[in-house]
Amino acid sequence: MKKKVVLAFSGGLDTSFCAIYLTKTLGYEVHAVTVNTGGFSDEEIQQIETRALALGVDSYHCVDAVKSYYESCIKYLVFGNVLKNNTYPLSVSAERTIQATSIANYALQINADAVAHGSTGAGNDQVRFDVIFSVICPQIEIITPIRDLKLSREAEIEFLKENGVEMNFEKALYSINKGLWGTSVGGKETLTSHEYLPEDAFPSPLEKTEAEKINLTFRQGELVGINGFEFPHPSEAIQHLEKIAAPFAIGRDIHVGETIIGIKGRVGFEAASALITLKAHHLLEKHTLSKFQLSMKAQLSEWYGSWLHEGLFLDPAMRDIEAFLQNSQKMVSGKVFVTLLPYRFILNGIVSEHDLMASKFGSYGEMNNAWTGEDVKGFSKIVSNSLSIYYQVNKEKQNL
Amino acid sequence: MKKKVVLAFSGGLDTSFCAIYLTKTLGYEVHAVTVNTGGFSDEEIQQIETRALALGVDSYHCVDAVKSYYESCIKYLVFGNVLKNNTYPLSVSAERTIQATSIANYALQINADAVAHGSTGAGNDQVRFDVIFSVICPQIEIITPIRDLKLSREAEIEFLKENGVEMNFEKALYSINKGLWGTSVGGKETLTSHEYLPEDAFPSPLEKTEAEKINLTFRQGELVGINGFEFPHPSEAIQHLEKIAAPFAIGRDIHVGETIIGIKGRVGFEAASALITLKAHHLLEKHTLSKFQLSMKAQLSEWYGSWLHEGLFLDPAMRDIEAFLQNSQKMVSGKVFVTLLPYRFILNGIVSEHDLMASKFGSYGEMNNAWTGEDVKGFSKIVSNSLSIYYQVNKEKQNL
Amino acid sequence: MKKKVVLAFSGGLDTSFCAIYLTKTLGYEVHAVTVNTGGFSDEEIQQIETRALALGVDSYHCVDAVKSYYESCIKYLVFGNVLKNNTYPLSVSAERTIQATSIANYALQINADAVAHGSTGAGNDQVRFDVIFSVICPQIEIITPIRDLKLSREAEIEFLKENGVEMNFEKALYSINKGLWGTSVGGKETLTSHEYLPEDAFPSPLEKTEAEKINLTFRQGELVGINGFEFPHPSEAIQHLEKIAAPFAIGRDIHVGETIIGIKGRVGFEAASALITLKAHHLLEKHTLSKFQLSMKAQLSEWYGSWLHEGLFLDPAMRDIEAFLQNSQKMVSGKVFVTLLPYRFILNGIVSEHDLMASKFGSYGEMNNAWTGEDVKGFSKIVSNSLSIYYQVNKEKQNL
Amino acid sequence: MKKKVVLAFSGGLDTSFCAIYLTKTLGYEVHAVTVNTGGFSDEEIQQIETRALALGVDSYHCVDAVKSYYESCIKYLVFGNVLKNNTYPLSVSAERTIQATSIANYALQINADAVAHGSTGAGNDQVRFDVIFSVICPQIEIITPIRDLKLSREAEIEFLKENGVEMNFEKALYSINKGLWGTSVGGKETLTSHEYLPEDAFPSPLEKTEAEKINLTFRQGELVGINGFEFPHPSEAIQHLEKIAAPFAIGRDIHVGETIIGIKGRVGFEAASALITLKAHHLLEKHTLSKFQLSMKAQLSEWYGSWLHEGLFLDPAMRDIEAFLQNSQKMVSGKVFVTLLPYRFILNGIVSEHDLMASKFGSYGEMNNAWTGEDVKGFSKIVSNSLSIYYQVNKEKQNL
Repeated sequence: MKKKVVLAFSGGLDTSFCAIYLTKTLGYEVHAVTVNTGGFSDEEIQQIETRALALGVDSYHCVDAVKSYYESCIKYLVFGNVLKNNTYPLSVSAERTIQATSIANYALQINADAVAHGSTGAGNDQVRFDVIFSVICPQIEIITPIRDLKLSREAEIEFLKENGVEMNFEKALYSINKGLWGTSVGGKETLTSHEYLPEDAFPSPLEKTEAEKINLTFRQGELVGINGFEFPHPSEAIQHLEKIAAPFAIGRDIHVGETIIGIKGRVGFEAASALITLKAHHLLEKHTLSKFQLSMKAQLSEWYGSWLHEGLFLDPAMRDIEAFLQNSQKMVSGKVFVTLLPYRFILNGIVSEHDLMASKFGSYGEMNNAWTGEDVKGFSKIVSNSLSIYYQVNKEKQNL
Repeated sequence: MKKKVVLAFSGGLDTSFCAIYLTKTLGYEVHAVTVNTGGFSDEEIQQIETRALALGVDSYHCVDAVKSYYESCIKYLVFGNVLKNNTYPLSVSAERTIQATSIANYALQINADAVAHGSTGAGNDQVRFDVIFSVICPQIEIITPIRDLKLSREAEIEFLKENGVEMNFEKALYSINKGLWGTSVGGKETLTSHEYLPEDAFPSPLEKTEAEKINLTFRQGELVGINGFEFPHPSEAIQHLEKIAAPFAIGRDIHVGETIIGIKGRVGFEAASALITLKAHHLLEKHTLSKFQLSMKAQLSEWYGSWLHEGLFLDPAMRDIEAFLQNSQKMVSGKVFVTLLPYRFILNGIVSEHDLMASKFGSYGEMNNAWTGEDVKGFSKIVSNSLSIYYQVNKEKQNL
Repeated sequence: MKKKVVLAFSGGLDTSFCAIYLTKTLGYEVHAVTVNTGGFSDEEIQQIETRALALGVDSYHCVDAVKSYYESCIKYLVFGNVLKNNTYPLSVSAERTIQATSIANYALQINADAVAHGSTGAGNDQVRFDVIFSVICPQIEIITPIRDLKLSREAEIEFLKENGVEMNFEKALYSINKGLWGTSVGGKETLTSHEYLPEDAFPSPLEKTEAEKINLTFRQGELVGINGFEFPHPSEAIQHLEKIAAPFAIGRDIHVGETIIGIKGRVGFEAASALITLKAHHLLEKHTLSKFQLSMKAQLSEWYGSWLHEGLFLDPAMRDIEAFLQNSQKMVSGKVFVTLLPYRFILNGIVSEHDLMASKFGSYGEMNNAWTGEDVKGFSKIVSNSLSIYYQVNKEKQNL
Repeated sequence: MKKKVVLAFSGGLDTSFCAIYLTKTLGYEVHAVTVNTGGFSDEEIQQIETRALALGVDSYHCVDAVKSYYESCIKYLVFGNVLKNNTYPLSVSAERTIQATSIANYALQINADAVAHGSTGAGNDQVRFDVIFSVICPQIEIITPIRDLKLSREAEIEFLKENGVEMNFEKALYSINKGLWGTSVGGKETLTSHEYLPEDAFPSPLEKTEAEKINLTFRQGELVGINGFEFPHPSEAIQHLEKIAAPFAIGRDIHVGETIIGIKGRVGFEAASALITLKAHHLLEKHTLSKFQLSMKAQLSEWYGSWLHEGLFLDPAMRDIEAFLQNSQKMVSGKVFVTLLPYRFILNGIVSEHDLMASKFGSYGEMNNAWTGEDVKGFSKIVSNSLSIYYQVNKEKQNL
């Protein structure tokens, strides 16, 4: 009886190679699985299935993971205003995590003997898949043909042709990875340190040039409505916002960071909805959270993003940070007013019943109704006590 | 014999009132001092001096603090990529600190009996002045007429008129504070939570609309050159960059934050040079620092900015953070390529002899020359050990 | 009609003075309230009530706060292994917080016009009371006779005698503050920087000298049992542990820290049960939590302790940290074995079904069943990648 | 011509096996090197050399690394008050780091083709050696016979006997690793989670039972003198303190922590001098540093210890933390008074010209000379502003 393998399948060259290799060379019963995190339309999924079956896999399954992806990960990235290295919404890191988890659970469900992924030996994804597979299904073998064989693109194509596979083998100029939380873009410029991506490398061309005002409704930290319309699920609001904002070519940049394997790398991305959601959410937090909440959130989110990036999503510390973040969102409800413009957006302001900038207590620099100048004098006196003692004891005033 | 007071003097309504009040009402010998942190031209300083003397002060002194301001504070804000609440370059916080320090030292130098500032009871500046005066010259009295008398603007004008002062008493629609590190803008919109500032509230109108490519040279974290020209001092490079970039209307936003006195407040700002310098510097760091350096710097800078904001610049912990930041900049040298565009800029990339993204070791996602797929398998295995044990011990796989 | 004031009453000289002063001098209807956080026996409460009524207050009320004190604060100090400056269990800080909260709520309940506390102007307690009163009952006046009048001890006694009060006015050599989480001890030595407290300054003399083995049962981070006996409430387990361990004179030390008002201060304490509970809990965590959980907990707990100390318990950031801590305790269940000895204790070890040090995966330094030497080689290779690149790029090997 | 290998040689079973194996089986020219970090006497080094030569190595070299060990690492562990998991002085972690660095540099110096270490595949040391070798001498091969061959103790002995080696092959009940910063102790109890080490497992038996008072002089954070005598180098002061304190059996405990390879492990240790030095230093800091310095130091030191433990000593972030720590020690000078007792010690107090607890400014809880009760009222008012606003806006008072 053949051994069963579950193959993480996207329909590209690498996973197509794997499908044939696992079936014919290694003799496995191959179950191809695509985990859709929002990057594929129904039509595209249909095409991927067709290709998988044409390649001779024994079964094909598509997991629609958009909502669970949002609930298990994106939600907390919003709560934490997480931008890796202050730039990148971590879309690929987050996707791979949910994809690996879904694949591993599917493998357990069908009693597979092995799981396979098509990662090369040069990137982050291999580690994310390896680690999550090792944790969720430790008794199941992990097969990584591309990494193990270290084949060139040409050799893969040759192998596929030899096995009678007819597909468009032309390499796209830019490799694209699309999902709910943005689209990554890699190409020859991102392999250098000094070149920016050309305009047409980005998937969404500039189509709108007239300023457009929108408002976003958040409820306890989650984006639930746009322009007054409430969506059944926040993931749908994020997708709708992408439709509105992507034609403005908003949210493009290049992320530079350290890979899990220690080299530095660059990746372009376009993430209109993610960037607007994150920045609008953060603005609402600035009005509704205490300074210590903002400060602690920033520190914890730095780690949350790093560990997600490094494939450590399953560390129980991540669940603890999520508990913190969830609790911090109780008052983060209100509307944020945004103007969309070509390549950029402006956060105009917010309204919230939890807005702490309520003028009856005083206005910054204008009025002090809730305290007196004498109060501030006392405050300044006490605040300066420790420093004043420090300098008097240490007689260092001359060096200031 | 009259008592001597040193008055922090800007030439505006509040400090003009103080000049008269201290001289005539309180009978002090008044020494007016302006600390120029880059916001005043020579001509403006001349006008301020003329006004001061017209108001009857006994002496006028201008401290040209641009270089010392940069050396004692701005340098570290660049090293730390400090943006308060991820938005605001802390220009006013930093200025007040150096101004208060200069005033206090001047007061010590001329053996003054008192120092005076024109802050109201509703803002941050009062605390910064109070605390720094209390620390540097603890034996010298602090006089704050505006805060103490809680006068209306109209009452101040009335008092000045009664004392024969002729000046333009019309209130500007927007209050502006300008310095090396940016210009703050307050007005009726910033007193609300929901309105953005109108185009003409910002001091630098959009004048350039054609994209302009520039390059910035950093040496050990400091901006030293622009387009190949090296400046005698980084503060001059910053000022020159402002001249180039301000006509693009770059670096505008509204900062929302908690004041030292506990209320939330909003302030608009325009800081083309500061924003470009900070973001270009950060990009260079992403290529030249280790991930732990970037991570620790982010955590420390969060506190550095907060304490600067809160008037705690003199805390010795700030010097320790500066030592960390200074040490971290050894390899942060190279060129950053920037494209300036209306209202925004693009960081195209960098070149640096310290660039850790050197392709001979491997290219992200493409090649692995310096390690093998087997190495990564081992890495993933060991990385997953603790998590794998955690889940096996706690039998929680079903809940992932 | 008289105005009502709620007085935080402990029966000591300062609050006795306040009782008379509020009643007779200020003409208030005085409602004395004692909040028992575990420091008073029923008999002592009875005596305090008798004294209060003898002083002429209009009503006396004792709030038995032991359980709510534990639930709202002590529990989290255990979860966080909180020792201020790595030494002090923060017993007084925590007590004042719950006392102030109880008093404020009582004042709201009886529609009081004012609340009063007997703090001097030289300590932390005044700020804790002030802040919590201002937050919970902002519309109610705060009266602080001792701070305002700045009376000497002798003047207070004189005033009491004049008002016919007969009590033992002799000052104890050491001022003691006792509660569930420990007893603080102040005296002439703690006013110096160099002297330790004498043996008899500590309230629990050494009475047991034979080693005694005990075991403590924790369930999800809470001390629930001792030597196999489970208590109805963790606060009772803490109190029982104190009975067992205090005769060993365990948990004594002097805490040195910065007061809220900026001066440094020293306070002695004795907290056998708190120290044993905290250290036993921490040991159990080392066996059951991931390294990132331990690391994040340490960072957050540092702030939790500081803000509790500084009277900021009501900051919503504290609730967020508590959510983190609560979530982190899911697996912190098991038994800890402790040997009690004169002045010290030994943590022998633990048993827990969640113990991650399970030998089947490998034993530190002995066996590697779950991975191979090759795996570690790969791990080391990948871990060294970034450093190796750093040194090769920067050619700094000579300086290591 | 034979290839050259530098072998990290301690004279124990594993490295003796390696000496023969590298010489005879692999045919290398073997250069044995011992790096003495304070654990070996001159006589012991002589014995190790004799054994090395008897095993047939081509050369033997001993690096006396005590002072460089102190300067490059121990100094910063003191500055940072570093105790891993709040317990363990990281003696082995620190030693391996300096040993690996010395070996690697020696290998570069003699143009070796390989370096070898005798670590097993089950511990931390293998990673520390691997990583540091990979970074300092990346072009040199790393040979690890014990890890690769996965031999049992018996097989190693058999091999040695076959090769004519006569040595005492009896296994000690407890494995000991001694150095300047303490002695680690492993044995059958430390392989369990619940047993403590027996009295005689610890290398220094209790020999002194009478209390002994000593004082320690620190200069800018470094231990420079004991009982008034100043030592030429702090490492000598540490060694002398060990002589005084070890007979009290001070500084024993069991450390529980996560190994680099993901499993949890326990190790006993005895480190009288390290524990006393660290705790005395910390006490002096509490009197001389600001609260923010103490707080930041605690956060940074947590990471410093973790990364040292994990073999990441060469990360440039470590140098930045060291710069912070070094700068923080400017005022940490003075004397600390300590009483040594059987199994424990008491920190009585300190004297320092930088002591911030100087009574002229006020005494905690007693006097307020430098401020008034009104000042504190103002302080409390302003401090409570943000919280008061938070609760009024959010109407949550009922839930407190």
